[in-house]
Amino acid sequence: MKKVAIGIDIGGTNSAIGVVDESGNVLVKDSIDTPGHGNIQLYIDDLASAIKKQVANVKLLNESIEVIGIGIGAPNANYYKGTIEHAPNLSFKGIIPFADMLKNKLPEYSTIALTNDANAAALGEMIYGGAKGMKNFVMFTLGTGVGSGIVVNGDLLYGNDGFAGECGHMILVPNGRHCGCGGRGHLEAYCSAPGMKRTAFELLVLYNDTTSLLANKSFNELDSKMIYDAAVAGDKVANEVFEITGKYLGQGIADTVHHLSPEAIFLFGGPTAAGELIFAPTHKSLEDHLMPVFKNKIKILPSKLNLGDAAIVGASALAWKEYEKQ
Amino acid sequence: MKKVAIGIDIGGTNSAIGVVDESGNVLVKDSIDTPGHGNIQLYIDDLASAIKKQVANVKLLNESIEVIGIGIGAPNANYYKGTIEHAPNLSFKGIIPFADMLKNKLPEYSTIALTNDANAAALGEMIYGGAKGMKNFVMFTLGTGVGSGIVVNGDLLYGNDGFAGECGHMILVPNGRHCGCGGRGHLEAYCSAPGMKRTAFELLVLYNDTTSLLANKSFNELDSKMIYDAAVAGDKVANEVFEITGKYLGQGIADTVHHLSPEAIFLFGGPTAAGELIFAPTHKSLEDHLMPVFKNKIKILPSKLNLGDAAIVGASALAWKEYEKQ
Repeated sequence: MKKVAIGIDIGGTNSAIGVVDESGNVLVKDSIDTPGHGNIQLYIDDLASAIKKQVANVKLLNESIEVIGIGIGAPNANYYKGTIEHAPNLSFKGIIPFADMLKNKLPEYSTIALTNDANAAALGEMIYGGAKGMKNFVMFTLGTGVGSGIVVNGDLLYGNDGFAGECGHMILVPNGRHCGCGGRGHLEAYCSAPGMKRTAFELLVLYNDTTSLLANKSFNELDSKMIYDAAVAGDKVANEVFEITGKYLGQGIADTVHHLSPEAIFLFGGPTAAGELIFAPTHKSLEDHLMPVFKNKIKILPSKLNLGDAAIVGASALAWKEYEKQ
Repeated sequence: MKKVAIGIDIGGTNSAIGVVDESGNVLVKDSIDTPGHGNIQLYIDDLASAIKKQVANVKLLNESIEVIGIGIGAPNANYYKGTIEHAPNLSFKGIIPFADMLKNKLPEYSTIALTNDANAAALGEMIYGGAKGMKNFVMFTLGTGVGSGIVVNGDLLYGNDGFAGECGHMILVPNGRHCGCGGRGHLEAYCSAPGMKRTAFELLVLYNDTTSLLANKSFNELDSKMIYDAAVAGDKVANEVFEITGKYLGQGIADTVHHLSPEAIFLFGGPTAAGELIFAPTHKSLEDHLMPVFKNKIKILPSKLNLGDAAIVGASALAWKEYEKQ
């Protein structure tokens, strides 16, 4: 009997569903629209149908497969309650008892668990990726925002109310850049992909550099991939964007290390594809900002999860983790 | 059979030894010099004799007492290894296998555990104080420095190498005040008792205020108690010191909350005796700096440990905690 888990990643526009084996291989996958109509029951019905379809598909590959449970990564997901609460990018408002609603449609699954996508990524790293065997590490996911998942003593840290691990919202610069959450000076406003763009424009302003490759793009056009391409092409401003992003990220990670004393920090997401361009200044800045007792101890590692499948794979890891506990 | 634990607090000049019952009452206590001679074996011999004396004393009170173990709070103590490592304020240099050395002298005690003093205070709060029944909270100890102890899922957080909980060294102000650890802009440089003094002098400079009660003290004379007395007497600068200290502390606690999602933050130490003078601006600043999902949820509470006995009582809590695990 081959055991598999279902991983679901709920994003603002798409919901991806995959069936994942114990090694983290995605056997089958599909995606449905995350609707804008706000009718949660309709969406749950569609999602349950899509899950059943994928389970049927995987059983075509191997009849004796056993599905051990469903793990879901979703914005503003509360692990303790199985709810999605006031997610700004979803059309479903208020507090949604998501796990219970899905259980009503799929009573055959005793394990249906939710957490946010960064927590799911951290679990994915621990179960399938570079954090195998590690008991204390932190995952930072750099993308439109900056998420984080904290693992302590081999378990995800949820805190008192399930919302621990918002390291992207630590304050790097008092009264600094406005953050999407309403705060000021948060790491996310500097080290996310849009944060890198903001740094690029700050540097254009500072140097009045009309020769930079980045000077020909509007604020809405420029993205972190363009900054990467320009940096590789030798653009001075673009290279400094990576320097500064790493400097901020290293400063923030130092605060995380001073709190948690992890073995390693994993970085995940689009901007990390730049490799040493981002890792080298991050590591230098981390060391510059650490207390002596932590210096030369903390690894900063690229996630080993495949960027395309990581959300599904991470979500499925939650199902495996819950299954282990039974 | 009445059970008691031994709590030992090792400071730079004194080592306090107490026998503590399950309710946190100190039955007997004494202190010996923490020597400056650097000979660790001599000190261990003295400490073991002092412990035996206190156990004999407590048995005079009640013959049927059982000692369940020894808990020790010490600077740079490593819980995992039972060591004291490179403690700057102690004359014993390098890595001292403290627990093992004491066990050699006191083989009758199977439980001898070490942690740093802020961790011990957090355990004391959980076992005897205001954090009874809480599973997720953080203790900040404000004194010459700022220590912290983090409790997660009912257990002290040690991290990968035993040094977690250095929240006093999070960066509040990039390139800000020099911290005793060698870093810059750390919370400790703003919110410790000397940090408050530094703020007082910053304000004297800013306002050129010759009428302030604080303007008659040298940098080496001024202490946080004088600032408190001046604030109560209506001194404008002294009151603003508390405002600013609370503002910094609340900013730092927000970062801690964003990492850990605790139920409560406990404040302990001399400056907290100022009550609302420090708690009110701290709480306001925390709320100003929290993400919406954490607003109006996090309690900031004064420690319920008695300031005079807290170090002994906290250290003894470590012994109880270890005893529970057996």
